[in-house]
Amino acid sequence: MKIDAALLASNNRHKKIEIAAALPGLIISLPADKGIEFDVEETGATFLDNALLKARALFAAAKTPVIADDSGLCVASLDGRPGVYSARFGFDLPAPPADDAERNAYLLSLLPRGRRHEAFFVCAMVLLLSEYRFFAAQETVEGLIVHEPRGSSGFGYDPVFFVPEKGKTIAELPLEDKNSFSHRGRAAARIRANIESL
Amino acid sequence: MKIDAALLASNNRHKKIEIAAALPGLIISLPADKGIEFDVEETGATFLDNALLKARALFAAAKTPVIADDSGLCVASLDGRPGVYSARFGFDLPAPPADDAERNAYLLSLLPRGRRHEAFFVCAMVLLLSEYRFFAAQETVEGLIVHEPRGSSGFGYDPVFFVPEKGKTIAELPLEDKNSFSHRGRAAARIRANIESL
Repeated sequence: MKIDAALLASNNRHKKIEIAAALPGLIISLPADKGIEFDVEETGATFLDNALLKARALFAAAKTPVIADDSGLCVASLDGRPGVYSARFGFDLPAPPADDAERNAYLLSLLPRGRRHEAFFVCAMVLLLSEYRFFAAQETVEGLIVHEPRGSSGFGYDPVFFVPEKGKTIAELPLEDKNSFSHRGRAAARIRANIESL
Repeated sequence: MKIDAALLASNNRHKKIEIAAALPGLIISLPADKGIEFDVEETGATFLDNALLKARALFAAAKTPVIADDSGLCVASLDGRPGVYSARFGFDLPAPPADDAERNAYLLSLLPRGRRHEAFFVCAMVLLLSEYRFFAAQETVEGLIVHEPRGSSGFGYDPVFFVPEKGKTIAELPLEDKNSFSHRGRAAARIRANIESL
């Protein structure tokens, strides 16, 4: 069984670009590209649960191989928050953050300046081939939260996530660099290895 | 990061032999081989949940890479049962089946003779490298349940699971044949690909 195309269980075009770059040879489409409406509540307790939940929902509609990922930021001094709530961080506030920049500002407001804030990104990625067949990988990348957002590449918390060994935030790195060491790039590399082994 | 050894979250020596044969280059040990007591209740709702549950429990005790699998038989005419309860099938009977042979007899007692009983084996396998890093694969193999158990290779439901393309039950096939097409062999091949891609 050769797999040459998959739907991505997401409406995020940034994520599509990133995952497509990490999976050369696989044609990745968003549900919207195929006229499929995709809207799933991410109620899982873990990154993997959420990735599988999204993959299964789209597979039920499309009956074609589906890739899904669920990613998040875990900050040590916040006891691992925002974690699986990363995309919705602050949603219970009177005025919830409305975009990535506001979510970053909210995150930084919780972290005292002048201290070292260790953090890691997590990405659980799933390739669902049929109701009972799938591959999954969860990978991480470690770094520090910085109070001055820097860079315009990537999305989400990338501008405040500093990678010591690169001397830059993830948003300061071009996509091919990001994919070579990031949580999502590493998870995609595992998915690619699974595909090649079929 | 090179991975050359892993603990198998199981007390089943048959399973160890099968997985070790499918993962050449990886030294697989049972918890008992390392003096670790391993006893986990498989309370997960899915094969993957159970595999992760076992992997995490052993990782917490051993702090070393852990392989876990959870496998089961799904019979179409039994609405997918015994499924995640395969190893405990009939445990709620007044006299529960005590071993594989008795579980096979119980299964056959539920299936009217003279009809075709389609079934598939499922295997979810996980390699847990650290608290947040893991690879997983779930694979299947399709076949038919036969009323006359045949063969002495393998374990579990292998003697009553007939694979049409082989013309034999799984228990009639030598281990290297079994691993080349079985649910567990296929899942192990994916795990191997993940390891090689690191």
